[in-house]
Amino acid sequence: MTMKRKKISVIGSGFTGATTAFFLAQKELGDVVLVDIPQMESPTKGKALDMLEAAPVQGFDANITGTSNYEDTKDSDIVIITAGIARKPGMSRDDLVQTNQKIMKMVTAEVAKYSPNTIIIVLTNPVDAMTYTAYKESGFPKERVIGQSGVLDSARFRTFVAQELNMSVKDITGFVLGGHGDDMVPLVRYSHAGGIPLETLIPKERLAEIVDRTRKGGAEIVNLLGNGSAYYAPAASLVEMAEAILKDQRRVLPSIAFLEGEYGLHGIYLGVPTILGAGGIEKIIELDLTEAEKVELNKSVESVKKVMKILA
Amino acid sequence: MTMKRKKISVIGSGFTGATTAFFLAQKELGDVVLVDIPQMESPTKGKALDMLEAAPVQGFDANITGTSNYEDTKDSDIVIITAGIARKPGMSRDDLVQTNQKIMKMVTAEVAKYSPNTIIIVLTNPVDAMTYTAYKESGFPKERVIGQSGVLDSARFRTFVAQELNMSVKDITGFVLGGHGDDMVPLVRYSHAGGIPLETLIPKERLAEIVDRTRKGGAEIVNLLGNGSAYYAPAASLVEMAEAILKDQRRVLPSIAFLEGEYGLHGIYLGVPTILGAGGIEKIIELDLTEAEKVELNKSVESVKKVMKILA
Amino acid sequence: MTMKRKKISVIGSGFTGATTAFFLAQKELGDVVLVDIPQMESPTKGKALDMLEAAPVQGFDANITGTSNYEDTKDSDIVIITAGIARKPGMSRDDLVQTNQKIMKMVTAEVAKYSPNTIIIVLTNPVDAMTYTAYKESGFPKERVIGQSGVLDSARFRTFVAQELNMSVKDITGFVLGGHGDDMVPLVRYSHAGGIPLETLIPKERLAEIVDRTRKGGAEIVNLLGNGSAYYAPAASLVEMAEAILKDQRRVLPSIAFLEGEYGLHGIYLGVPTILGAGGIEKIIELDLTEAEKVELNKSVESVKKVMKILA
Amino acid sequence: MTMKRKKISVIGSGFTGATTAFFLAQKELGDVVLVDIPQMESPTKGKALDMLEAAPVQGFDANITGTSNYEDTKDSDIVIITAGIARKPGMSRDDLVQTNQKIMKMVTAEVAKYSPNTIIIVLTNPVDAMTYTAYKESGFPKERVIGQSGVLDSARFRTFVAQELNMSVKDITGFVLGGHGDDMVPLVRYSHAGGIPLETLIPKERLAEIVDRTRKGGAEIVNLLGNGSAYYAPAASLVEMAEAILKDQRRVLPSIAFLEGEYGLHGIYLGVPTILGAGGIEKIIELDLTEAEKVELNKSVESVKKVMKILA
Repeated sequence: MTMKRKKISVIGSGFTGATTAFFLAQKELGDVVLVDIPQMESPTKGKALDMLEAAPVQGFDANITGTSNYEDTKDSDIVIITAGIARKPGMSRDDLVQTNQKIMKMVTAEVAKYSPNTIIIVLTNPVDAMTYTAYKESGFPKERVIGQSGVLDSARFRTFVAQELNMSVKDITGFVLGGHGDDMVPLVRYSHAGGIPLETLIPKERLAEIVDRTRKGGAEIVNLLGNGSAYYAPAASLVEMAEAILKDQRRVLPSIAFLEGEYGLHGIYLGVPTILGAGGIEKIIELDLTEAEKVELNKSVESVKKVMKILA
Repeated sequence: MTMKRKKISVIGSGFTGATTAFFLAQKELGDVVLVDIPQMESPTKGKALDMLEAAPVQGFDANITGTSNYEDTKDSDIVIITAGIARKPGMSRDDLVQTNQKIMKMVTAEVAKYSPNTIIIVLTNPVDAMTYTAYKESGFPKERVIGQSGVLDSARFRTFVAQELNMSVKDITGFVLGGHGDDMVPLVRYSHAGGIPLETLIPKERLAEIVDRTRKGGAEIVNLLGNGSAYYAPAASLVEMAEAILKDQRRVLPSIAFLEGEYGLHGIYLGVPTILGAGGIEKIIELDLTEAEKVELNKSVESVKKVMKILA
Repeated sequence: MTMKRKKISVIGSGFTGATTAFFLAQKELGDVVLVDIPQMESPTKGKALDMLEAAPVQGFDANITGTSNYEDTKDSDIVIITAGIARKPGMSRDDLVQTNQKIMKMVTAEVAKYSPNTIIIVLTNPVDAMTYTAYKESGFPKERVIGQSGVLDSARFRTFVAQELNMSVKDITGFVLGGHGDDMVPLVRYSHAGGIPLETLIPKERLAEIVDRTRKGGAEIVNLLGNGSAYYAPAASLVEMAEAILKDQRRVLPSIAFLEGEYGLHGIYLGVPTILGAGGIEKIIELDLTEAEKVELNKSVESVKKVMKILA
Repeated sequence: MTMKRKKISVIGSGFTGATTAFFLAQKELGDVVLVDIPQMESPTKGKALDMLEAAPVQGFDANITGTSNYEDTKDSDIVIITAGIARKPGMSRDDLVQTNQKIMKMVTAEVAKYSPNTIIIVLTNPVDAMTYTAYKESGFPKERVIGQSGVLDSARFRTFVAQELNMSVKDITGFVLGGHGDDMVPLVRYSHAGGIPLETLIPKERLAEIVDRTRKGGAEIVNLLGNGSAYYAPAASLVEMAEAILKDQRRVLPSIAFLEGEYGLHGIYLGVPTILGAGGIEKIIELDLTEAEKVELNKSVESVKKVMKILA
């Protein structure tokens, strides 16, 4: 029978990983295994137990366990990878990329070993390159290795627009292409409030400011926090993608997907509109771009390629 | 008209305060103001913004703001106080109590000044004495100053029982009286799985172990985390109490309530079964206790009184 | 204090009214009073009780009562009017309009008497004229008398599009103006899948078929049922509008609103995009229409005016 | 992969069947197939379509289809049977039993043919005998053929108690054994408000009245409605059982289960406390009964046996 609970593993028990684990359990999407390195096993177990103790109050049935043993992730339906270090003061970007690449390879090898049929969602930065690394290391078909960036970027955009227009976030849509953050290509003409194009509701200059704030949305949080980076919205974004897959919802969500000809690009992971369902990325939606958008997308591609060159 | 959103202020933007703010917004219980001291204003704003950016993804309409200005809490319907320090190595209990008392007084004065009709829920430890402090400082009627401990203690108990019996947490109830943690008086005879008394489902010795683990539930998390304490389950517990009040649900929940004759006690805040509704504590439910339970409750009372003597 | 539960009255306990009452309670939006004529009081009470008995299972706290006494609706925050007869074989449209006008007048007088500050949402057909009747009879300001049609029309459109594209309904938006059903003016250029204009995803002829099916969406259900008309989707639509108001969400939803100059129209109730919040219709959003859309809107206006001429 | 949506078939598209289908879809528990006889195919399709059109508004992704072809139920994970006739004036009980038995046999044969591994939940009255009929006809192991009665009976009991005590339904538990309605054996000593035995909160005579009202709860609704019987609470009850199985929640719920020695009974379907999980009835919980309870249970058994003798 197929009534067995789904199993979702979250690699990395930092704030984003832990919050992701909690949201998954809260929605009863399946049992959750939170994984970190052996030195972090005890706090990982602590977080898992604390979350579990919220279950009777919030009324969800889902097991949450903390571990440093990848055997516990065996036969996961989905694996979400948040592991990796953040860029520290004085650290070169090359160092960051290579360190996270090393982590990504190690993690992916373990994940693929125990869950050869799983679907991987990557959050680790720089996310385009790290998703590529997971793809290569796992040997999985491309539709089962996916990166997150556009759901978060557009969530930030939607938040700022909702505030600007004093309207419900439920009725604002946002649309982004390309890389994460600075490399984001916003498709404002495909962004709406209640179906109405934002361009008819917000003056051009103000909209440009909102786009700019969105690009720097991650840095804005980092600067405010002083120590650490955003985790609520990133975790919510990861869980929306996972839910679309686990429930076969065929949501239209931006994903970092491996392109083989789409948008005229080959052999690169980049943010594009996709349909997420039971099989992972079930379709990449191709759009006609304006010349200006093409220019921006190319900048984004160059930026991703530069990072990929650093990969060992 | 009364359609205005409810307003809930959460004092203290640490992990519990922040998580509480998020759960309140997620349930669309109202707009949330997260307050901390001026030195923490920037990270408090950062957390609030990060949470807000999760709203389009999770689909909730609620404003969340970070501030260090109590004026922003004006006319709150509920104020949840999580502010306070944790006991540090080498710190005497007296020092802890007096430091948190000072914080509680300061916070309560500000809260009462801007929201004279609000209902206060206290989490700060030692919670019985701190709720008393808030009661005295606010001058509010007793039904509007409430402490949290029993919802969390029983949530932990229910979690352990659900694991022991391999049953849904939805069907396990737990019942506790008295102080928090070590001072907790578990009423196992009023605790059930699917309505069936636990005593008929779990051997006596095993049940005693589970009770003991519950008493030490907070310390178990502290020890696992190594650095910091539980916040998911405490936040969920606070929000369940707040929701009962905000939606006038008349939930039967254990609260730290001011006793004036109930259970033969006078002038003390202690954990007892209550009905929480629009007015705060709408009723204290009195139960006949066995001799053994009375003995345990008295120990709990002594323990609370000892702490109250430390109050300046 | 403002913690008192909201109160919502639903007039008419037929399938739509009853289902509306249930959805309101299920979402804990407030206590619900279901009202029908004295001859129907007993079944109305029966439905209310049956719904109430689902509350422990589904876990909602809301009172639901059945009555024929308008005194029980006193001080409602919102009143939803579903009362009215359906067109029977052999009945002229004039007869239908005049019968429902009579019902609407009687109901509105009672509603306004007991809840002079409430907000009225009308479903009764022909809905444009009936909303006008409620407006006139109540003497309420226009922002507090609202008709439902566009939420339902666009829900049907979105359903058909989601099926056509095999995508999640969550990502499809639809946009309609003008009257209900046949008189609907679909703004396909403002309708999207994942933010992408439908016109780029669905061939023009197929899209026209979908629009046509939407126009006749009510009749399609009537024909299939053989006896009776749709009630699940209409009830869901009413509740979405009510929720937007009760929670002050400022949703962007199509409403039947009283126009005083907007879209060049005066003194007529017609479907237009609005912002719904605590005050009812807080804003009417004006859009530039194409010539073709203007032609269709004018046809819709003529159609509404023809019905209004029948009003006694 | 196992990410395919669950499939749930509901046999009988009357009010209970339709409402059950809607609740299943609303909770995104899987895709739903609503089945009725060929003569009812058109209205069944109509109801399914109306429900589907509520999906964009309520935000659920689930397909709902109406059919009279059992092939469409192929490989259902769960099948819920609500088909059957209600007792009409002048109809003898024997006629009712034999007519519904015929229906049950026909339905079960079709269900078992297309979904040999499914789990069947029966609502059709008289439910104990009809569950037995489905068990025999399907040839399924007993844990996969389950009847509903106790969830509904205890929901009614909990509703009445919540009203009596003016407390949240969330905190009231009820416990019943034996047959449905009149034959119900209430275990008041295992029924609580906030964990507190009802016997200490409600005077004995009043509690007896509430028990009596519960026994006659179905008839109370029938009498009020005048025409037809309850369907909201029965549908909610069916869905709670189905959800426990579909999500492997191991809920402790009363089920009509086949007894082979439990409670000293053999070869009879009767209401007992069970654990519902992925496998259907995963455990029957045996309780020590008082002498008075045993007497009542025996009466219930005799009543069930009397009906079973009528089975052809």
